[in-house]
Amino acid sequence: MKLLRYGEPGQERPGLLDADGRIRDLSGVIDDLAGAALSPENLARLAGLDPTSLPVVAGTPRLGPCVAGVGKFVCIGLNYSDHAAETGATVPPEPIVFLKATSAITGPNDRIEIPRGSVKTDWEVELGVVIGKTARYVSVEEAFDHVAGYCVVNDVSERAFQIEHHGQWTKGKSADTFGPIGPWLVTRDEVADPQALGLWLEVDGVRRQNGSTRTMVYGVAFLISYLSRFMSLQPGDIISTGTPPGVGMGLKPPVFLVPGNVVRLGVEGLGEQRLTVVSG
Amino acid sequence: MKLLRYGEPGQERPGLLDADGRIRDLSGVIDDLAGAALSPENLARLAGLDPTSLPVVAGTPRLGPCVAGVGKFVCIGLNYSDHAAETGATVPPEPIVFLKATSAITGPNDRIEIPRGSVKTDWEVELGVVIGKTARYVSVEEAFDHVAGYCVVNDVSERAFQIEHHGQWTKGKSADTFGPIGPWLVTRDEVADPQALGLWLEVDGVRRQNGSTRTMVYGVAFLISYLSRFMSLQPGDIISTGTPPGVGMGLKPPVFLVPGNVVRLGVEGLGEQRLTVVSG
Repeated sequence: MKLLRYGEPGQERPGLLDADGRIRDLSGVIDDLAGAALSPENLARLAGLDPTSLPVVAGTPRLGPCVAGVGKFVCIGLNYSDHAAETGATVPPEPIVFLKATSAITGPNDRIEIPRGSVKTDWEVELGVVIGKTARYVSVEEAFDHVAGYCVVNDVSERAFQIEHHGQWTKGKSADTFGPIGPWLVTRDEVADPQALGLWLEVDGVRRQNGSTRTMVYGVAFLISYLSRFMSLQPGDIISTGTPPGVGMGLKPPVFLVPGNVVRLGVEGLGEQRLTVVSG
Repeated sequence: MKLLRYGEPGQERPGLLDADGRIRDLSGVIDDLAGAALSPENLARLAGLDPTSLPVVAGTPRLGPCVAGVGKFVCIGLNYSDHAAETGATVPPEPIVFLKATSAITGPNDRIEIPRGSVKTDWEVELGVVIGKTARYVSVEEAFDHVAGYCVVNDVSERAFQIEHHGQWTKGKSADTFGPIGPWLVTRDEVADPQALGLWLEVDGVRRQNGSTRTMVYGVAFLISYLSRFMSLQPGDIISTGTPPGVGMGLKPPVFLVPGNVVRLGVEGLGEQRLTVVSG
């Protein structure tokens, strides 16, 4: 299933995309795509519905973030060997983990607001993993049992805030609008192999990132198991698994976003985002 | 006011502490101590109530985390010059900011679970600031307008996870039970000067931390203003403002928590926590 949330910010309703690409309303079935609604049992229940029995949503409403009530937005740094190289870093001997503020989350076709004082706002297309079942000390073998599905994430990053203002990366990862997710939460059964997905990103039509999850250093199952040693993962948590090469700071000379840019990005089978850059 | 939440985990109800130290039930007035309930307008409404008109809660129920639905648990590192010195670090030229997983939050008298594989679980008494009104690009002068109140925070930290596993501090800060908050959310009007509060922490009756918020490097108002440049602060967000000297890793030789330890800590005017350490 391709699950989604549609409607104005803060007033989104749950829906699904039917085989003809139309949005069907799920608000008569679940309150929202959040927490317990993402459990294996509930997803099985939704999968058992006949989409044609659900109301068609008219028009082309805004799409909101594909998951609501995200408790943790866990990100992995330098998880593609070729991306690590372009930033001048070496591949870390263990995954680099940081948290992105959940207040950064926006819809897949919303605006990216350049924070005040920013001159280095950058892009990062990533595969997002949405947790459906609490994970604590889980093995690699069990890891996928805890996955509800996958989504496109743009881990928008301000490089001066991240690197030049001392301390941890949080400051460069957490501005409002720095976390577009979606368009869809694609359930796990529709993604045969999360380690074989193409990812790409374009700015104003220029292809900037082009990669495959095949070249991840630490794969999805390992990451879930690893993270679950350090924190419990809860339904609705998102793990963003790192970005392939081609970020702005890695270009020679570096290129950063400016108001008016249009950023398009996608992950194979998970849909596309289209974001317009504005001043914050 | 001293606001609190009482009851079993996940089923807490809002309450307040009356002048006689009894818990009065607020569940007929607000749904929970979360989000919009923390707004200046709503806190003024609660302050206008006659506590004796509210039902007395019988017995001595468990106290839960004093705020629900925390969106962000923002922590400041090395914010007391003498603590920085004991860890061998220098005072940073700008605040060090990281996020603690909100899934770490527990009540003030709950258990601290030592994570599996941990040998360096440590304590940090801190002054917590609870946001009541959204803050984006606010000035130092405006900062306190955005504060609902204050609480005791124990920023429990696993030093090997934090420092020896590469990358960011997140891994050592986010285990379940690593974020006891409360006992109370003490509203801003009851704290004349948040930069003049004593803080202390004891392990098994041995005084380990003893400090004052007077020696903070970056004060509360500055921190709110500073953070609001990098992320918006929302009602219910907590800022934990750093710890004074006396953490376990700073002792010679270092001392860390073991099952059976009892940790007591407090901040002047904000109450005390009493936490029992167990194996996770």
